[in-house]
Amino acid sequence: MFLTRSEYDRGVNTFSPEGRLFQVEYAIEAIKLGSTAIGIQTSAGVVLAAEKRVTSPLMITSSIEKLVQVDKFIGCAVSGLMADSRTLIDKARVEAAYHWFNYNERMAVESVAQAVSNLAIRFGDSDAEEGPAMSRPFGVAMLFAGIDDDVGPVLYHMDPSGTYVQYLAKAIGSGSEGAQQSLEEAYNKSMTMKEALKSALTILKQVMEERLDASNVEVASVTQEQGYHFHTKEEVEEILKEVQ
Amino acid sequence: MFLTRSEYDRGVNTFSPEGRLFQVEYAIEAIKLGSTAIGIQTSAGVVLAAEKRVTSPLMITSSIEKLVQVDKFIGCAVSGLMADSRTLIDKARVEAAYHWFNYNERMAVESVAQAVSNLAIRFGDSDAEEGPAMSRPFGVAMLFAGIDDDVGPVLYHMDPSGTYVQYLAKAIGSGSEGAQQSLEEAYNKSMTMKEALKSALTILKQVMEERLDASNVEVASVTQEQGYHFHTKEEVEEILKEVQ
Amino acid sequence: MFLTRSEYDRGVNTFSPEGRLFQVEYAIEAIKLGSTAIGIQTSAGVVLAAEKRVTSPLMITSSIEKLVQVDKFIGCAVSGLMADSRTLIDKARVEAAYHWFNYNERMAVESVAQAVSNLAIRFGDSDAEEGPAMSRPFGVAMLFAGIDDDVGPVLYHMDPSGTYVQYLAKAIGSGSEGAQQSLEEAYNKSMTMKEALKSALTILKQVMEERLDASNVEVASVTQEQGYHFHTKEEVEEILKEVQ
Amino acid sequence: MFLTRSEYDRGVNTFSPEGRLFQVEYAIEAIKLGSTAIGIQTSAGVVLAAEKRVTSPLMITSSIEKLVQVDKFIGCAVSGLMADSRTLIDKARVEAAYHWFNYNERMAVESVAQAVSNLAIRFGDSDAEEGPAMSRPFGVAMLFAGIDDDVGPVLYHMDPSGTYVQYLAKAIGSGSEGAQQSLEEAYNKSMTMKEALKSALTILKQVMEERLDASNVEVASVTQEQGYHFHTKEEVEEILKEVQ
Amino acid sequence: MFLTRSEYDRGVNTFSPEGRLFQVEYAIEAIKLGSTAIGIQTSAGVVLAAEKRVTSPLMITSSIEKLVQVDKFIGCAVSGLMADSRTLIDKARVEAAYHWFNYNERMAVESVAQAVSNLAIRFGDSDAEEGPAMSRPFGVAMLFAGIDDDVGPVLYHMDPSGTYVQYLAKAIGSGSEGAQQSLEEAYNKSMTMKEALKSALTILKQVMEERLDASNVEVASVTQEQGYHFHTKEEVEEILKEVQ
Amino acid sequence: MFLTRSEYDRGVNTFSPEGRLFQVEYAIEAIKLGSTAIGIQTSAGVVLAAEKRVTSPLMITSSIEKLVQVDKFIGCAVSGLMADSRTLIDKARVEAAYHWFNYNERMAVESVAQAVSNLAIRFGDSDAEEGPAMSRPFGVAMLFAGIDDDVGPVLYHMDPSGTYVQYLAKAIGSGSEGAQQSLEEAYNKSMTMKEALKSALTILKQVMEERLDASNVEVASVTQEQGYHFHTKEEVEEILKEVQ
Amino acid sequence: MFLTRSEYDRGVNTFSPEGRLFQVEYAIEAIKLGSTAIGIQTSAGVVLAAEKRVTSPLMITSSIEKLVQVDKFIGCAVSGLMADSRTLIDKARVEAAYHWFNYNERMAVESVAQAVSNLAIRFGDSDAEEGPAMSRPFGVAMLFAGIDDDVGPVLYHMDPSGTYVQYLAKAIGSGSEGAQQSLEEAYNKSMTMKEALKSALTILKQVMEERLDASNVEVASVTQEQGYHFHTKEEVEEILKEVQ
Repeated sequence: MFLTRSEYDRGVNTFSPEGRLFQVEYAIEAIKLGSTAIGIQTSAGVVLAAEKRVTSPLMITSSIEKLVQVDKFIGCAVSGLMADSRTLIDKARVEAAYHWFNYNERMAVESVAQAVSNLAIRFGDSDAEEGPAMSRPFGVAMLFAGIDDDVGPVLYHMDPSGTYVQYLAKAIGSGSEGAQQSLEEAYNKSMTMKEALKSALTILKQVMEERLDASNVEVASVTQEQGYHFHTKEEVEEILKEVQ
Repeated sequence: MFLTRSEYDRGVNTFSPEGRLFQVEYAIEAIKLGSTAIGIQTSAGVVLAAEKRVTSPLMITSSIEKLVQVDKFIGCAVSGLMADSRTLIDKARVEAAYHWFNYNERMAVESVAQAVSNLAIRFGDSDAEEGPAMSRPFGVAMLFAGIDDDVGPVLYHMDPSGTYVQYLAKAIGSGSEGAQQSLEEAYNKSMTMKEALKSALTILKQVMEERLDASNVEVASVTQEQGYHFHTKEEVEEILKEVQ
Repeated sequence: MFLTRSEYDRGVNTFSPEGRLFQVEYAIEAIKLGSTAIGIQTSAGVVLAAEKRVTSPLMITSSIEKLVQVDKFIGCAVSGLMADSRTLIDKARVEAAYHWFNYNERMAVESVAQAVSNLAIRFGDSDAEEGPAMSRPFGVAMLFAGIDDDVGPVLYHMDPSGTYVQYLAKAIGSGSEGAQQSLEEAYNKSMTMKEALKSALTILKQVMEERLDASNVEVASVTQEQGYHFHTKEEVEEILKEVQ
Repeated sequence: MFLTRSEYDRGVNTFSPEGRLFQVEYAIEAIKLGSTAIGIQTSAGVVLAAEKRVTSPLMITSSIEKLVQVDKFIGCAVSGLMADSRTLIDKARVEAAYHWFNYNERMAVESVAQAVSNLAIRFGDSDAEEGPAMSRPFGVAMLFAGIDDDVGPVLYHMDPSGTYVQYLAKAIGSGSEGAQQSLEEAYNKSMTMKEALKSALTILKQVMEERLDASNVEVASVTQEQGYHFHTKEEVEEILKEVQ
Repeated sequence: MFLTRSEYDRGVNTFSPEGRLFQVEYAIEAIKLGSTAIGIQTSAGVVLAAEKRVTSPLMITSSIEKLVQVDKFIGCAVSGLMADSRTLIDKARVEAAYHWFNYNERMAVESVAQAVSNLAIRFGDSDAEEGPAMSRPFGVAMLFAGIDDDVGPVLYHMDPSGTYVQYLAKAIGSGSEGAQQSLEEAYNKSMTMKEALKSALTILKQVMEERLDASNVEVASVTQEQGYHFHTKEEVEEILKEVQ
Repeated sequence: MFLTRSEYDRGVNTFSPEGRLFQVEYAIEAIKLGSTAIGIQTSAGVVLAAEKRVTSPLMITSSIEKLVQVDKFIGCAVSGLMADSRTLIDKARVEAAYHWFNYNERMAVESVAQAVSNLAIRFGDSDAEEGPAMSRPFGVAMLFAGIDDDVGPVLYHMDPSGTYVQYLAKAIGSGSEGAQQSLEEAYNKSMTMKEALKSALTILKQVMEERLDASNVEVASVTQEQGYHFHTKEEVEEILKEVQ
Repeated sequence: MFLTRSEYDRGVNTFSPEGRLFQVEYAIEAIKLGSTAIGIQTSAGVVLAAEKRVTSPLMITSSIEKLVQVDKFIGCAVSGLMADSRTLIDKARVEAAYHWFNYNERMAVESVAQAVSNLAIRFGDSDAEEGPAMSRPFGVAMLFAGIDDDVGPVLYHMDPSGTYVQYLAKAIGSGSEGAQQSLEEAYNKSMTMKEALKSALTILKQVMEERLDASNVEVASVTQEQGYHFHTKEEVEEILKEVQ
């Protein structure tokens, strides 16, 4: 049975007899090898937190970026193949800047997710109009966190199939299964930003193999007041003190 | 025998010895993995209803779109690969807008279905004149519902082979087999729109695995008076009260 | 032996050791899966009749087209892959219109068949001068029926190899073998159009699995007086009364 | 041994370890499946005769062309894949017309054969200067018969490898082996055109499976007086009376 | 199990069922066959040292370059396929020169690493905008050592996946595993440049198979005062005297 | 062992583990299936002689060309695939004519051989600057015979690998092995042209399967006085009288 | 084990699991089938000597070129596939001439080696900026011998991987292993050119299968006084007298 399956899964963009696209499913597996990241939306803003893996004490962890700013009011967490994620983040930044330049208004977080998705789903197609396509699906999951002008804080999740869905709270990466369950238990609609930050780090701590400290975690928050704010090592340590 | 079969089914656009195109048949399988949607045509208009799958209570279901507006008087339900469907819906919208702009009249629903079909059947061909082609068939089934200027309400179904046929009522997706049988029993030509709405939700309820409520179903209707109308959560709940 | 055979049949446009092109032969198989159609030439005109397959009572059968008009005096019956047939019919219509426009005379039916054949035989060739080529043979058989200015009524048959031959009467599709035998028995050169219509429906009735009625059959005739005439449901029922 | 062989024969334009190009050899096999044709050169002109296969009594055999005119003084008999032959015949006609137009003299039969050969040997090459190339060898054998201004009647044979050689008399197609032997026995340099016509039909009769009559054979002759002359049904029947 | 694995690892840019890209992993193996190189960052500058393999006493070892200058204040150590490294080094030099020309300021070491990474991750993509892409990953690991205007001495490591991370000290090549452990033990933040040079050569000596001398090792240092300085044979011998 | 070998030999332009290019070696085999040709250089000129294979007594052997003129003072003998040879001969003629036109001097025989070799070695490369390349090596061996302005008579041999070497006497084709041995025994530097002609035909007679006569052999000579001279049937018969 | 290996070695530019590029390694094997060549650098100049293989006494060995002049002061010895070497030598000559033309100074030998290497390492890449790329590595090893303006005599070796390294003395080709050992024993820095010539021929004599004489060896020297000098047959015989 496994042999029969393997006859379909190498062809990028070929259906198996059950109507499945295996390369997309395998790209989703690539994310299960990635570091864990968490996003939580509150009424005041959105919190992002991500694990960083340290393989040598001589590594300078601040050079690993799992959380990045897309726009003044939009941030992004990634998990999976870092090289792939850069292309998608560049797409998000360019689209957001282009929107601001053309319409003189913030791009909606959903529109950013859709623009990135449009790039992500084009794998296997040649001669596409939006530039060169990938020969395989992107091995990246993303959390888009931002403040929309009209609806306030929103959190979107996108997977390698290009599907993007809005969430109140979402975990991605190797620890996502356990983290998502914890999020479903911990989440409530009246959470403050501070509670969300504590909750995110508490759950990250549970699913990480190494001991969590300020050097192997990144934290960011997006609020109407501050826009995208990347927390300093000191701010992270402040929160960690309360996590236990 | 199965081994012999498998020698033909990976080649996009290669005939098997029996004259079959397996990749098209497998794309049809992809739709059997998709969520169920139903369309019913009455003398006053057309009803569309579609299931939405909820995998986490933190998911915001309104961000999943199974029913979309194509034009003022044309709506569309999709089942299968969401990323694929976006390309086809864009094609439908562009063609309808273009028709209006050029001829100053509504595009016929059949013409919309044909335009989308023309795109769908081009997979495997390179260097085609209407832009870049897919390397495999689209994994999407679609219901086009609309009001034609001359003939009134019409409902069209299109499958991955690009075949489009008019129906009085049609179900697509994982529950389509059972739903189609129920439709054949329930349908009568003198149905009112309200009866059609109730009938669509009753049948959807039967074939869905989860409990149907206003958060995991979408309902739309197309009538001469209102054009395409996407029902609000309150309107859906109103109908659901009568379904039992 | 079958294994050896299978080594050649997937290569579009590769000869087997016996000098055969298997993909063309498999495309001919695709037509044996298609619905049956019949053409009969009389001295007064040509009759076309085709089966339509109904898979649900809610299907509106008039939206399935097995007989189409090419020109004022030329009609066409198709069997096989419907999506493929559309490309070939478009080719026929464009060539006929172009001929009329350029030479101000009707295009001969044979010339139409040749133009369509030129397109059909180009599969597997890239960079061809008449536009993009198919990557496999077309899975379609066609009957071209028309009135030529000089020779009167003519009927041409074309198969996926692009071969076109004139016939007095010809059947295509899944029931073609039995139907052709019946045609050879029933045909005589002094048939009237009415007799030909009755004969076509009688033979179609014999080879169809479902009960033949006005909703699952299409009938057209091409005469010098009327040109291409698609028979209305009432006209078909009128003939059916006499068939038994 | 056969398995080892099969590893080379699918690759168009790949040498086997013995230095053979199997696809060309298989194309030659394709001709052995074709109908038989015969050419005989006399001092007064060249005779061509070809079998036509009739698969149904309702087939109008005059629509099958095995003998075609290339130029006023050049005719051609083909055997093998009819769709392929059309491309080669078009090439021959265009080159002959172009030569006349440019040089105001008849093109030599050998030059016509060479022009067609130049097209035939280009299979497998992409981006060639004379237009798009075939992805496989042409499955056609041809006899070119004509009157050269200086040397008088000539007959050339070309096979799928593009090799063309002059003959006094040559048979191609499924019955070519037996027919060529009969030709070698029957031929003499002082034959009249009438004797050559009788001889061609006598030999064709021997190798055909069906009974030869005026409807399943085509006859043409090329002479200085008449140029290319396609014999009418009556003329053929006249000769047949004298054959056995 | 190994057989199943091998089905995925030849496809450049195809995911295995576990979500892995084997060609990238194999490129990383290529580096484990390469010569060892070490980089150490101190507060005063960065030290680079690299092994050179001598296969014949007639080889002139100075013609093998494992350490190269990128810019006045940036140097680079490479390990793996030398031919591949040249393309990447050219990219680094061009980008650094271009930056200086355009902005009249030193390019940050991280920016150089990113520019090289952008080239490295494009393998397998055709028609990319930055010029022709490789058909496989680069088989090269690199250490970028430099002085940034604002932050002082920095050391970056990049592997074939295009991932670049900042390190205090890092070893690459066949002896990297043992060397990295030794670096973690030997490193302290208050090291002088001289101590770093001694430390690098001591560790290189431990992991090299041949006896280390001034002819089979290269040493360079980057400081604010001197910029990139390639140590002469005499300078290297000076340090070697103190190593033991 | 043979199985392992067969894994490399189908890939045009792929090295086997032993560093061999099998497709070139197989092309050399193709020549061993070809007819035999011989070239002999004397101080007065160069002699070429070639076998012609006659498969039917009705074949007109003068239409088979194994010896061709390239330029006034250069001739050429070919063995192997005739269709391939035409491309190479055209190249030789064009280059020689072009040289004369540009420099107003005879092109050296070696330069002609090099120009043809440049075309021959380009197989498997796409997008080459000198026009479209072959997808496989040419299956042709050639003997270039000519008179150079400065050095007098010269004879060059070129094989499918594109290697060209000067010879005093050389045999190619199916009988080349035996013929070359006979040449080595028979050759002496003071041979007259007449002796060389007799020697060539004597050796050809030994290696040919059929009885050699003036209809199945071609003879040409290149001298300073006559340039390239193709011997008439009568001249050949004259020599044959003296042979044996 | 061997079977597993063979799965990677046909893919040009695909890494094996051990990080190896087998096609490059097989190209290096191709050189081990080539004739032997030797280069020796002295303080006064560089000596090149190469074996020529004679397969027939009728072969004119001077038409085989294993040593070629690149520039007035640069020569080159090649071993491996002769057809491949011509492309690389042309590159060397063009670059050297271009350098002289642009800068009015001799191109350094290392720069010539690098230019040729840049071409050699591009195999497998399409659409490269420096012209069409090879589909496989070049099967050639080269010795570049020359006099640099500043450093005097230099000798560079380049293998199919594009790696070039400076040597005092280096052997390539089938006998390279034994010859290199002999060179290491025989070499001393104070050798005169005459001693180097004798040494090269003595070593070549040891590794050649045939008896070495002036007709199957080529000798060249590059000195400041003479530039590139190809030794005449007489000069070679002169040296040979002293050898042995």
